[in-house]
Amino acid sequence: MENAGKQIYQIAGELFPICRSITGDGVRQTLRILQKWVPQIKISEVPSGTKVFDWEIPKEWNITEGYIENSQGKRIIDFQENNLHIMGYSVPVDQYVTLEQLKAHLYTEPSQPDVIPYVTSYYRENFGFCMSERLKNSLPQDTYHMVIKSTLTPGSLTYGELVIPGESSEEIFFSTYICHPSMANNECSGPALAVWLARWLMRKQARRYTYRFVFVPETIGSICYLSRHKDELKERVIAGFNLSCVGDSLQYSIVESRYGNTLADRALKNILRSHCPQFRVYSFLKRGSDERQYNAPGIDLPVVSFCRSKYGEYPQYHTSADNMDFISPEGFQGSFEVMAKLIDLLENNRCYQVQVLCEPQLGRRGLYPAVSRKGQYDAVYGMTTLIAYADGTNDLIAISDRIGCAADLLIPVVKQLSDAGLLADAQEQKHPCSS
Amino acid sequence: MENAGKQIYQIAGELFPICRSITGDGVRQTLRILQKWVPQIKISEVPSGTKVFDWEIPKEWNITEGYIENSQGKRIIDFQENNLHIMGYSVPVDQYVTLEQLKAHLYTEPSQPDVIPYVTSYYRENFGFCMSERLKNSLPQDTYHMVIKSTLTPGSLTYGELVIPGESSEEIFFSTYICHPSMANNECSGPALAVWLARWLMRKQARRYTYRFVFVPETIGSICYLSRHKDELKERVIAGFNLSCVGDSLQYSIVESRYGNTLADRALKNILRSHCPQFRVYSFLKRGSDERQYNAPGIDLPVVSFCRSKYGEYPQYHTSADNMDFISPEGFQGSFEVMAKLIDLLENNRCYQVQVLCEPQLGRRGLYPAVSRKGQYDAVYGMTTLIAYADGTNDLIAISDRIGCAADLLIPVVKQLSDAGLLADAQEQKHPCSS
Amino acid sequence: MENAGKQIYQIAGELFPICRSITGDGVRQTLRILQKWVPQIKISEVPSGTKVFDWEIPKEWNITEGYIENSQGKRIIDFQENNLHIMGYSVPVDQYVTLEQLKAHLYTEPSQPDVIPYVTSYYRENFGFCMSERLKNSLPQDTYHMVIKSTLTPGSLTYGELVIPGESSEEIFFSTYICHPSMANNECSGPALAVWLARWLMRKQARRYTYRFVFVPETIGSICYLSRHKDELKERVIAGFNLSCVGDSLQYSIVESRYGNTLADRALKNILRSHCPQFRVYSFLKRGSDERQYNAPGIDLPVVSFCRSKYGEYPQYHTSADNMDFISPEGFQGSFEVMAKLIDLLENNRCYQVQVLCEPQLGRRGLYPAVSRKGQYDAVYGMTTLIAYADGTNDLIAISDRIGCAADLLIPVVKQLSDAGLLADAQEQKHPCSS
Repeated sequence: MENAGKQIYQIAGELFPICRSITGDGVRQTLRILQKWVPQIKISEVPSGTKVFDWEIPKEWNITEGYIENSQGKRIIDFQENNLHIMGYSVPVDQYVTLEQLKAHLYTEPSQPDVIPYVTSYYRENFGFCMSERLKNSLPQDTYHMVIKSTLTPGSLTYGELVIPGESSEEIFFSTYICHPSMANNECSGPALAVWLARWLMRKQARRYTYRFVFVPETIGSICYLSRHKDELKERVIAGFNLSCVGDSLQYSIVESRYGNTLADRALKNILRSHCPQFRVYSFLKRGSDERQYNAPGIDLPVVSFCRSKYGEYPQYHTSADNMDFISPEGFQGSFEVMAKLIDLLENNRCYQVQVLCEPQLGRRGLYPAVSRKGQYDAVYGMTTLIAYADGTNDLIAISDRIGCAADLLIPVVKQLSDAGLLADAQEQKHPCSS
Repeated sequence: MENAGKQIYQIAGELFPICRSITGDGVRQTLRILQKWVPQIKISEVPSGTKVFDWEIPKEWNITEGYIENSQGKRIIDFQENNLHIMGYSVPVDQYVTLEQLKAHLYTEPSQPDVIPYVTSYYRENFGFCMSERLKNSLPQDTYHMVIKSTLTPGSLTYGELVIPGESSEEIFFSTYICHPSMANNECSGPALAVWLARWLMRKQARRYTYRFVFVPETIGSICYLSRHKDELKERVIAGFNLSCVGDSLQYSIVESRYGNTLADRALKNILRSHCPQFRVYSFLKRGSDERQYNAPGIDLPVVSFCRSKYGEYPQYHTSADNMDFISPEGFQGSFEVMAKLIDLLENNRCYQVQVLCEPQLGRRGLYPAVSRKGQYDAVYGMTTLIAYADGTNDLIAISDRIGCAADLLIPVVKQLSDAGLLADAQEQKHPCSS
Repeated sequence: MENAGKQIYQIAGELFPICRSITGDGVRQTLRILQKWVPQIKISEVPSGTKVFDWEIPKEWNITEGYIENSQGKRIIDFQENNLHIMGYSVPVDQYVTLEQLKAHLYTEPSQPDVIPYVTSYYRENFGFCMSERLKNSLPQDTYHMVIKSTLTPGSLTYGELVIPGESSEEIFFSTYICHPSMANNECSGPALAVWLARWLMRKQARRYTYRFVFVPETIGSICYLSRHKDELKERVIAGFNLSCVGDSLQYSIVESRYGNTLADRALKNILRSHCPQFRVYSFLKRGSDERQYNAPGIDLPVVSFCRSKYGEYPQYHTSADNMDFISPEGFQGSFEVMAKLIDLLENNRCYQVQVLCEPQLGRRGLYPAVSRKGQYDAVYGMTTLIAYADGTNDLIAISDRIGCAADLLIPVVKQLSDAGLLADAQEQKHPCSS
């Protein structure tokens, strides 16, 4: 577990240079890199024009070149240097223009004059160039040559999917997206963490739940996936997590589900509370990633987003400053540990019921100090309190929340008490008891 | 809508001079003035002695003269000058008394030495004179002549009623009272606002709901009205508002229903929250007007009181200082705007359900900016958030409360989305879905 | 009622010198003293070895002598002087040892160097001596003679029980424990208060409820009692109170039931709120006395603990400093008054329903001032507000909590209104309506 952060950082680095969009070869390249770590990832293609709920799979976009040249033939900006320079889904252009004409096609972020902003125009045919405000302001009167060599033609949308079976057909769901070009936290970090978590899960000896990972282009990809798998997801998924911006070291965040009360909300908040009490809770009013689709009315999946610094809330977001320096092995290590603890908690989350009436005699079982004296009582406090609330109406999360004791400290206690025959699962039914 | 305040102030001024009580010609005069604005107001008479639940319609009281004369024949106080000088429901008297004997029949407000207090004795035969503490203290030893020419005889209680039909038989209910003599905020303001609201409603092209206005003497009048109309009100009224003290400019207030959780509470608080965030919420523990009867156990109507400065909470209350200077066109204008917004909200309050799965493609319908770039997302935030919670379990009030966005800003969005086929009423059932 | 505190203090003083443990003659002596005040207390014996849920009644322990002598024959400590000097359930010993060997059997409380700590070893055969840290540190090298003359042999566990019948078979339950040696607040105070409350209840002319008192050794005693009476208690008990540490004057405390929401929680908090607003609420996470057994999963009795300074939360707790100086007649008087008010509240706690529609005419019944004028309204505020919420869904506790008016002030109002035919019990059903 200790080298996880370094490994995930390395995967993110491998994904970073690729020019991705919601369709095209960048997505396919990305998925092939992920397959190097988990060959079982299954890649699907959905043809342009396919109806997916209220949407339609757009034409496929690919790009080979893109630059602005001045009259001396010097390239002012070049796609080869930074793929953020070309607005996503730009149609081809090859045109000589004045500075004024050029400016109509330039996008900058005036409040951050040194960064290249990330801009797209998926659903209206358009083209554009992105650069720093400073560069734009330095451009002299001249004749400029705008060149974009791209194709926007019928093709397909590409996504990846992985199902890791467990004892139960109930699923824990992970979603992350693979449609952003060279930005590190948003979003090379999500796919990198996801693929590493999948590896870790596949190596576990036993899994109570089935795990499903999807690697999709944001919005259109999750809508597309849902249009094909909605019923099975609604039947099986008990908790889901959208992974986004999980590589920085600044904080931890959760974006809640629509009403903030699902098993996913409860489990992730429980873990973050003990792992990092200063974590931030964003309500669904602050949503912005694929949790929007998973929580849409009629879809109603119990999905939250897990982030370190939340998308849209850090200055580097959607700019060239979201680069490999903004994320770190330490940042990934923290995210991985939270996810690993979360999975352990979900795997052990049951509605326990104490198997004797009144308090059990712990001493007789070697679980209680035999000499009772002032102060010593605290030693078994966690154990007796867990038993006190093991009345079959509280799952482990509820007990941990109530006691204020980290779930990962309670899991071994549960095992000890279960081995002694004092605890049992109150129900072999579908969903955990409390909500 | 802009001249509403001035017009309502003028109506209140016309009502001001009349000597009203819970029965008598002052009530009839008042209703006839209101009929000038809305001729459809129906006037009913209920004979003295009629049983109305635990009460009985009292004898009818009328008064023509009332004064105290000193031995020089000078009138110390005179009913003609201010009708508050005579205690309401005073029986006739014509008696010469010493200063000491006189004082047994004088009522003052020592804490406010310059005002005439408003005093009544409806249910025990009595008489009295009200004056300023200062005047009382200035009276010399003398022989005084106490004169009240009043009648307390079998007659009737008078009330007015107006039903403005709408598409649905479900009703929005307004109640106000017409039993206070010359006091402006409490209570020429309520009937004046009510009659103007009724005019405004009658001119609307379409009304979803039926509107019922009652103009009753306080307490005995609302009890009397309920004794005759309880079952129909309980079946039809979905929200009701007692209008009292609505003419001053100092603040806005709501007195909640018995448990503070009805549609009337929710709607009025929602409007006040955006109209005037400093508004005051008084719990039902602070009740004091006809909301007492409408919320009584077994009556259980969803009725709150709407006030500017709440009755009992401003120093001019129930004194001669509650005069036409204490209320203003601006005060009425504000009250009218709150009521008009409230009615718009109720008329548009439905449990909306989005009609597509996952987020709708707003761009295709011209509802979303086509170029996506940093910061621009907020432009459609209200729209997408409204859609996110349009799951058929939240009415518009609930969504507005959750988003923290004024309902009157959401109503045009709802129309736009409904026109685009993206929203529909989740249910054609009786009451709004959330509570 | 005024001399209650003195009398209870005297009873506690009579109980103080006795050496009690969870079994043995000290328990029997204690119960015989209590029988002097209430001869109806029934004493039961349960043989050693009897299975009681997960536990077994231990051997009976009795002790006649216990001391440590130095080589000059001087007794360093002596059981006759303070029975805390011998660890509870010590097996016999008669042995000469060095200082080092002796120290292995000494128990002190280093943080409080002058007190003798209270130590027991019920479920593992062992022996020990308790003394002040200061005395231990002063002991010179020497040969010491450790002597304990005790017996640990098959016998029985002893408990007392008292049922005071009422009109209903529903019960109010009190539990207190009789297993601690010479400590005053914890726990001569509980049995002393309990027996006095029982006397007071038996002298009442009418009791709506049946009252059950149990005097048991802590933990094993309540488990034993539950193993014999669980079903009848679960059927009958509507509220129960564990009495412990009720003799000091420092504060008032409640230890809540498992979820803090039973009738017992609501009633005791209501009384404490008006009796002493600074009272402390300890959640069930801070439990530690027999409320643990009564609230165990599957037992689920509505039992809270009532204390002045809570066990475990005051420095004298479980030491020789918890002596007759720590408790006082005033402390007991306060506890008695709280319990007496609590019982009055429970006896009068019904879901009242007003018997007329709309507000009743109080004036006609002489319940309302006939002249209505500014300010006077408050005089009947409690009465009218009680009526406003007497809708059959609130019991008297709920109304008192809502109004913020002490229940003992409302009880006479309820009687007055009931006598006037205006209030009636909404239901003759088992449990009060609100929870």
